[in-house]
Amino acid sequence: MPTSGTSNMVSSADVNGTEVYGRDGVHIGSIDHLMIDKQSGNVAYAVMGFGGFLGLGEEHYPIPWNKLHYDTAKQGFVTDITADQVEGAPARTDDWHRDRDWERRTYDYYGVAPYWI
Amino acid sequence: MPTSGTSNMVSSADVNGTEVYGRDGVHIGSIDHLMIDKQSGNVAYAVMGFGGFLGLGEEHYPIPWNKLHYDTAKQGFVTDITADQVEGAPARTDDWHRDRDWERRTYDYYGVAPYWI
Repeated sequence: MPTSGTSNMVSSADVNGTEVYGRDGVHIGSIDHLMIDKQSGNVAYAVMGFGGFLGLGEEHYPIPWNKLHYDTAKQGFVTDITADQVEGAPARTDDWHRDRDWERRTYDYYGVAPYWI
Repeated sequence: MPTSGTSNMVSSADVNGTEVYGRDGVHIGSIDHLMIDKQSGNVAYAVMGFGGFLGLGEEHYPIPWNKLHYDTAKQGFVTDITADQVEGAPARTDDWHRDRDWERRTYDYYGVAPYWI
């Protein structure tokens, strides 16, 4: 659970497992882990677990970091991404995290400036 | 243990606990967690645990991310920072992670361009 809500920074240890809510307050999923671009040190994606039950059948969806905003009151992330949008995102390729084409389509899809430029 | 050594990305889950070695191969410490700048999504610091025994008396030292280079063969990070250098770094203030002055001195000390510019 993030404890540094008033800070400019958040610990990676606090991010894993943090809940994600939509604009309407509906629970969408939770962050499983972050993917970090080694070279630049940018968080490329927050990988959100979504669907399933008690972790069974849960799918993982990489979300651009700047679509998530930490809400101190909720102790979770708020996003303007909807569950439908997550499900409609470009399907992950096997090597999505080294597939610039997939990355480009994903950032395009979410309407976010790429982390790699 | 990082599994994505050949990728451009590394998972936050793999970074926590990863060992850090000096240029001479000597073990320096291990990464406890990352501190992420919320706004930019940059990894601001890798917080390294150092000294102590079995976690007792271990001190935490924030290191600029780009001083760490992942070595697939070692399955750990290699850095040109020395143990002496770590111990001589600007002492952490209580609110170091929102203290731009401390941050500036630390990035200066390690000779790395600040993540916030």
